Amino acid sequence: MVTYEQSLDQRGLLVVLTGPSGVGKNSIIDALREEDPRFFHSVSMTTRQPRKGEHNGIAYHFTTKDRFEELTRRGDILEYDTYCGEYYGTPSAPIDRMIQDNIDVLLDLTVNGALELKRKCPNAIIIFITASTEEALRDRLLARGTESEEAIESRLATAREELGRINLFDYWVINDVIADTASDIRAIVKAEKRRVSRFFVDECTL
Amino acid sequence: MVTYEQSLDQRGLLVVLTGPSGVGKNSIIDALREEDPRFFHSVSMTTRQPRKGEHNGIAYHFTTKDRFEELTRRGDILEYDTYCGEYYGTPSAPIDRMIQDNIDVLLDLTVNGALELKRKCPNAIIIFITASTEEALRDRLLARGTESEEAIESRLATAREELGRINLFDYWVINDVIADTASDIRAIVKAEKRRVSRFFVDECTL
Repeated sequence: MVTYEQSLDQRGLLVVLTGPSGVGKNSIIDALREEDPRFFHSVSMTTRQPRKGEHNGIAYHFTTKDRFEELTRRGDILEYDTYCGEYYGTPSAPIDRMIQDNIDVLLDLTVNGALELKRKCPNAIIIFITASTEEALRDRLLARGTESEEAIESRLATAREELGRINLFDYWVINDVIADTASDIRAIVKAEKRRVSRFFVDECTL
Repeated sequence: MVTYEQSLDQRGLLVVLTGPSGVGKNSIIDALREEDPRFFHSVSMTTRQPRKGEHNGIAYHFTTKDRFEELTRRGDILEYDTYCGEYYGTPSAPIDRMIQDNIDVLLDLTVNGALELKRKCPNAIIIFITASTEEALRDRLLARGTESEEAIESRLATAREELGRINLFDYWVINDVIADTASDIRAIVKAEKRRVSRFFVDECTL
């Protein structure tokens, strides 16, 4: 039987942003958190070495391979992926706490990470962010000026390949003007809190 | 193959509001259209007699049973339902025109009408509107002061029965404060325009 009580929303949402390198995910997260500081940005854990200027707990939680593998065995890593031989993953505990406290959690994950999370938590929203065209993405990567032309072409090839898997995602948001992108994502979060399936699908256990 | 062009949204959305008598659907539609007059409110066609003060083309398009049945046979009625022996239906032609012109269309339909439309047009969004509790709905019906206590109890029984079918709808919006309800529906429309399935599901033919 359906009761009115079921319509009351008391849990936070897991909101995953995925998209090619250079598409502007960090700026989008900053814009969302500036407007609503209650958005919690989950910081990933990695086994790679910190780069110059990277502080532990800000860009990443840095850890060792042994520790990462131990956490994974204990089921304390929600999702993880490997890149260049290093682990990148999401620790479960802080996210679980936020969700229970009705705080929405933003995660920045790879395509595989996003899909793995969605399998575990069907209530998570996975959003694919792209530029408006491949040329726009190329321009952004060039503007960053941190990579060789070859590295940029390789990133564009990856982006092209990943776009082919967009049909596995829930939403496709174009990042052209940051304010519009943030407004789209806020609307998505607001709408998802009224989705009927959300009131009837079992929660995931993190 | 997925191309960036697929992300371009050029069609209007069919947005169906369904909910018990007295829940405030007309006020919600007025609030949405006041904010954005480009929302097109589709007027239903009925074979019942106009009540005092009802003008043709405003509350309803009034027509005869023969004419209604002829339109149905010709496939010119998108969905219809019967109530107290009279037809209530939605003419296809104006809606099709609006959708093609990238205008969002609001429809106020019965539970059966909404589900029939959704079967024909999987891209339509069907929103179920309820009061926050059954008591809140009773209070509203009493405040209208147009019906006997018996008629109100019968409407509440129908509302209870219909709530049991809410799991067939896309969204569940609580109408407590009209401005919040309108804001929820605007967010739903905005979010739906970014849903991945929308870019890959075939359009319906009206």
